[in-house]
Amino acid sequence: MQKPMKTMMRYILIILLFLPSFVMAQDLNSPNGNFELKFSLEEGKPTYQLNYKQIAIIKPSSLGLGLVEEENLSENFEIIASETATFDETWTPVWGETSTIRNYYNELVVSLKQIETNRLMNIRFRLFNEGLGFRYEFPQQEHLTYFTIKEEKTQFAMTGDHKAWWIAGDYDTQEYDYTSSKLSEIRGLMEKAVTPNVSQAPFSETGVQTALMMKSEKGLYINLHEAALVGYSAMHLELDDENMVFTSHLTPDAIGNKAYMQAPTQTPWRTIIASEKAGDILLSNMTLNLNEPVAYEDVSWIKPVKYIGVWWEMITGKSSWAYADLPSVKLGETDYTKVEPNGKHAANNTKVKRYIDFAAEHGFDQVLVEGWNEGWEDWFDKSKDYVFDFLTPYPDFDVEALRDYAKSKGVKLMMHHETSGSIRNYERHMDKAYQFMVDHNYNSVKSGYVGDIIPRGEHHYGQWAVNHYLYAVKKAAEYGVMVNAHEAVRPTGLRRTYPNLLANESARGTEYEAFGGNNVDHTTILPFTRQIGGPMDYTPGIFETDVSQYNPNNGSRVRTTIARQLALYVTMYSPLQMAADLPETYNKYLDAFQFIKDVPVDWSETLVLEAEPGDFITYARKDKNSNNWFVGRTNDEEERTSAIYFDFLEKGKEYLAIVYKDGKGAHWETNPKAYEINKYRVNSKSKISIDCVPGGGYAISLMEAEKGELKGLKKL
Amino acid sequence: MQKPMKTMMRYILIILLFLPSFVMAQDLNSPNGNFELKFSLEEGKPTYQLNYKQIAIIKPSSLGLGLVEEENLSENFEIIASETATFDETWTPVWGETSTIRNYYNELVVSLKQIETNRLMNIRFRLFNEGLGFRYEFPQQEHLTYFTIKEEKTQFAMTGDHKAWWIAGDYDTQEYDYTSSKLSEIRGLMEKAVTPNVSQAPFSETGVQTALMMKSEKGLYINLHEAALVGYSAMHLELDDENMVFTSHLTPDAIGNKAYMQAPTQTPWRTIIASEKAGDILLSNMTLNLNEPVAYEDVSWIKPVKYIGVWWEMITGKSSWAYADLPSVKLGETDYTKVEPNGKHAANNTKVKRYIDFAAEHGFDQVLVEGWNEGWEDWFDKSKDYVFDFLTPYPDFDVEALRDYAKSKGVKLMMHHETSGSIRNYERHMDKAYQFMVDHNYNSVKSGYVGDIIPRGEHHYGQWAVNHYLYAVKKAAEYGVMVNAHEAVRPTGLRRTYPNLLANESARGTEYEAFGGNNVDHTTILPFTRQIGGPMDYTPGIFETDVSQYNPNNGSRVRTTIARQLALYVTMYSPLQMAADLPETYNKYLDAFQFIKDVPVDWSETLVLEAEPGDFITYARKDKNSNNWFVGRTNDEEERTSAIYFDFLEKGKEYLAIVYKDGKGAHWETNPKAYEINKYRVNSKSKISIDCVPGGGYAISLMEAEKGELKGLKKL
Repeated sequence: MQKPMKTMMRYILIILLFLPSFVMAQDLNSPNGNFELKFSLEEGKPTYQLNYKQIAIIKPSSLGLGLVEEENLSENFEIIASETATFDETWTPVWGETSTIRNYYNELVVSLKQIETNRLMNIRFRLFNEGLGFRYEFPQQEHLTYFTIKEEKTQFAMTGDHKAWWIAGDYDTQEYDYTSSKLSEIRGLMEKAVTPNVSQAPFSETGVQTALMMKSEKGLYINLHEAALVGYSAMHLELDDENMVFTSHLTPDAIGNKAYMQAPTQTPWRTIIASEKAGDILLSNMTLNLNEPVAYEDVSWIKPVKYIGVWWEMITGKSSWAYADLPSVKLGETDYTKVEPNGKHAANNTKVKRYIDFAAEHGFDQVLVEGWNEGWEDWFDKSKDYVFDFLTPYPDFDVEALRDYAKSKGVKLMMHHETSGSIRNYERHMDKAYQFMVDHNYNSVKSGYVGDIIPRGEHHYGQWAVNHYLYAVKKAAEYGVMVNAHEAVRPTGLRRTYPNLLANESARGTEYEAFGGNNVDHTTILPFTRQIGGPMDYTPGIFETDVSQYNPNNGSRVRTTIARQLALYVTMYSPLQMAADLPETYNKYLDAFQFIKDVPVDWSETLVLEAEPGDFITYARKDKNSNNWFVGRTNDEEERTSAIYFDFLEKGKEYLAIVYKDGKGAHWETNPKAYEINKYRVNSKSKISIDCVPGGGYAISLMEAEKGELKGLKKL
Repeated sequence: MQKPMKTMMRYILIILLFLPSFVMAQDLNSPNGNFELKFSLEEGKPTYQLNYKQIAIIKPSSLGLGLVEEENLSENFEIIASETATFDETWTPVWGETSTIRNYYNELVVSLKQIETNRLMNIRFRLFNEGLGFRYEFPQQEHLTYFTIKEEKTQFAMTGDHKAWWIAGDYDTQEYDYTSSKLSEIRGLMEKAVTPNVSQAPFSETGVQTALMMKSEKGLYINLHEAALVGYSAMHLELDDENMVFTSHLTPDAIGNKAYMQAPTQTPWRTIIASEKAGDILLSNMTLNLNEPVAYEDVSWIKPVKYIGVWWEMITGKSSWAYADLPSVKLGETDYTKVEPNGKHAANNTKVKRYIDFAAEHGFDQVLVEGWNEGWEDWFDKSKDYVFDFLTPYPDFDVEALRDYAKSKGVKLMMHHETSGSIRNYERHMDKAYQFMVDHNYNSVKSGYVGDIIPRGEHHYGQWAVNHYLYAVKKAAEYGVMVNAHEAVRPTGLRRTYPNLLANESARGTEYEAFGGNNVDHTTILPFTRQIGGPMDYTPGIFETDVSQYNPNNGSRVRTTIARQLALYVTMYSPLQMAADLPETYNKYLDAFQFIKDVPVDWSETLVLEAEPGDFITYARKDKNSNNWFVGRTNDEEERTSAIYFDFLEKGKEYLAIVYKDGKGAHWETNPKAYEINKYRVNSKSKISIDCVPGGGYAISLMEAEKGELKGLKKL
């Protein structure tokens, strides 16, 4: 299935400059002229700066890399050539937020030679109308083939003490609440920001992860991230908080090296997106555009998924993944037919059938089942190498009978591969595990990497693990399997090339609501940070926000109203969405649940109606497979009023608007379940104003209606 | 193919002692009473000592382990139980030095409990008539399940400044010449002993590897090694040279830990073999006896192998493994059909066919071909991850045609899997690589691990790699493949359990003769050290000892006479033996070559006629499949006379003895090719005296003859 794809594109090559080596500076503008890049050598050091509408947004910043043994690719260069070009192509993603995507940039490639070593390095800049992407390239050459990177030294010199929404730089987890602060305050807030995690490795008092969202004093939004992280180590940013300069900080391997390279090769792209409008950050397709076109010839087997799952009851502690209460097990030696079940194992035939029935009844594609396989008794935090085999079900999970039952109901089960970070073990079993999926009618897998990586010393975001995650995705494609990888490296747009990588978690998701709670404004930040690189399997849809109702020993509160949970299906983009709560709870709120049933997971158009990081986001999206639209608003811890226009609707048409909003007096803490559902008749001239409570929001479905069908409904 | 085997055994359990906890000491004797073990707790520390014929050979030495986080399993114990037993069983190896092996020992198991932690640990001692084996065991228990070993602290307190034949303790290589010195001299000789290697990690000025061979002042031979290295890290010995106490030193992982354990589990066995007769050390089967019985149900596909190979001409530099002279390649991207061949690629169709013809003509089973596959241009010392795919031949190696050609000649090709230390890459390809072998009629593979291990930070002898080597052997069995692993951990008797592990190199072999030379006495030491744990693929049979004859740029001399090369087929035990030189050279010495053709690789009886480590070894072995005997003598750098009796021959029978010995004036350096072949008529009363030159030796085939067949021959 993996063959190079022929793209339709118009490529215009304009050789504008061929400069002799004594010329030190190059300029590049974005197509619309708003951005200006200047590249130069400052005493032999490659340097760039970026202006937006003639104002500096990146001050002169140096580029380059440090190699092992005190070598470098950061100084003593001369320019031997440079080329510019323009590229303008519209391409069609297999699934996404829009039907088509325009990839339109001006490009500058500077070819450098290091004077004493004769090493060659190119830097390729692409200036889009929303910002800059650039990467290092190492052509085939005589004086550089195998090299080991000690640290990348890409600078991003900020022009002021911007406000930032950040999580601590960490080699192993992103599962932190965001802190919003000025850059100068990061150092003082770092200790508090690093909350406990079973696998974590914060590395600096001023280190942060990407995507990093910022806002200048003048109100310019600036976002830093990377695209196309392949064959390299994930980048963090380390802040010099005297000068407000970020420098790239890569994730090390077990012996402290950052990446092993063989020329010809390149680094990932470093991206800078900027706009006066926060919504432009969200709507930028730069990350995707910087990735390679789709690698598979046949993509017909890749389809977005709506699912429910035997999961939340284990997350809350109501049930267990494990079948028995044994202190430890050895796969193949422990005889589960002889152990006493603990009576709390959720992944059993009866329950799974009930979930299959519910999925079939309400139109869900798949049922995730966690805890179906031997090994859960001692999987967590033991650094256990042979922890799962991904093949052997517990005695109460009849994989064949359930396959047939699901099939008879038009539903699939979703596979679960928790690796416990034991990467070699997963790879040893991977072919058989994927074949097992094929044999039992599974076509999608949620994988997990909870706990420190094995081989010990490696990190979740190092080159070693990054290589593994892509290996798992590519091998999955050989079996027609789609992947949703949790605890893996945060995405960087690889879904363009490998569209069976449907989603990742790779941030603090809904499960943490049951582990003490997420910040109320968490989902008003994630699209600006985590989701710049790709979809997130946030697993929303929690209606019973008082976790003690499920597990009296767990006093966590999900910090949300029900209306906001519905909104998340629109605001937390993903082609794979879960209705995460228990069927018995949904059955109590079927009117609200209707929105989750109606909302699609593949879109032809996406708009941002309102957005301020940390405060609120309102998205409007058009279903790819109909003329229906959906709106969602997520609100922070303040009471706010949202006022939106429906001018995106098709003129001359009428729509049934079903508005699911916070009820009067609703509040995530004191009254989360108060919601109101109202139906209206709307068209492109309509507008609406909705009060959102702390932790609240609203969701609106807009279904195209026949003329006259809606008379009698209130008109907006 | 892997099922537990039912053994025939007689097991006598005698509970001799059930001691209350205040009794601190236990005794155990070997069946013949020569050895006496004393175990005790010295202020809560487990301690043992070993006497031989009432003389201490191991002074009181402590036992135990250090765990991470300052925990320990080495002190503060009490004895809660002890049991003794006797075991006597004779079993049949699939192949070996003898037809049957007797496993006869007295056993003591002490059960210990650590007073403050309540952790349980057993120590199992088995006293054989040739020495002691013991290991730590960790039963299933409440207070110890997952634990990480920081260092094992097993002591072996020597009773004097013994003479030792040693190589430097090293986490990554054993490819050193041996040094013979007193223990007190190790420190001063270490620097010289550590010669360069592409992958090495010596760790101490007084660290040495096992098996360690020693000789006390009084002439007692003492050998220290380990048996059944499974799921653990390889042991070295670190010498406290003030007190002459060795302490175990395990191989670390990337973060400095030694082993990750899950109870119930156990360590490998630590072995102490001792005798006044050097030959008893060589003939001991303790290592095998301490391993588990064979794991496979069907072993009919496992057969010893005699082979030749397209190899030595690359080792000498006459030809190349690589097809082209490219600075670097990328598998799947480099198009070998378009590159210019370097004209020195040995693994080509014409040459391989010639080797197949030679093998068929002279009765060899297999032809090894190295350099058959893409990737050799840049495989060495680049820390290259995706270095080989084990599947894709070079353009001049037609794998299908050669399979068919070999088959038509009744010969098999031997596969070669050089991994370049890139373990994950090998495992990713392993199933396909083994299937490729099956599809192309290969049933044996020489594997290699040249260069630092990838994942970086791991070592060749750490728990991680030890796990991998066994994984490769067990998976090979699924495909009916036999394994000969070079640069892997030195063997510890696993061939009993997994008899498709035919051999390892895992020491300085014949190839080093072309890299500058081995010590002249090297092969008089290896059987006492490297081969205590298992066979060695030493690849002897070099007749052209002046390497410059093959490659004018390589002035190395193989430090041997031709006669000694023949002897090595008897003295360097292996079920897999190579005639390593080039066919064109053998064609010049077909009379000498006849011995190599005649010598078998599977034996029913083995005797040591003469032996002194570092000086000489003379073995006599009986062919398993006939009544023929073979004798071999390897000699050091001194002129010596060997005098042996043929009293091992069957009484009343006559044998044709063909004696291949050093010619007059032969010398490894000045006259290596001088040899004499004489035929005699011998019987069990015969004897012979042969002069051996520096680097010389002799080989004798003794073929049962019919009465009267040999008249006319000189009688011995």
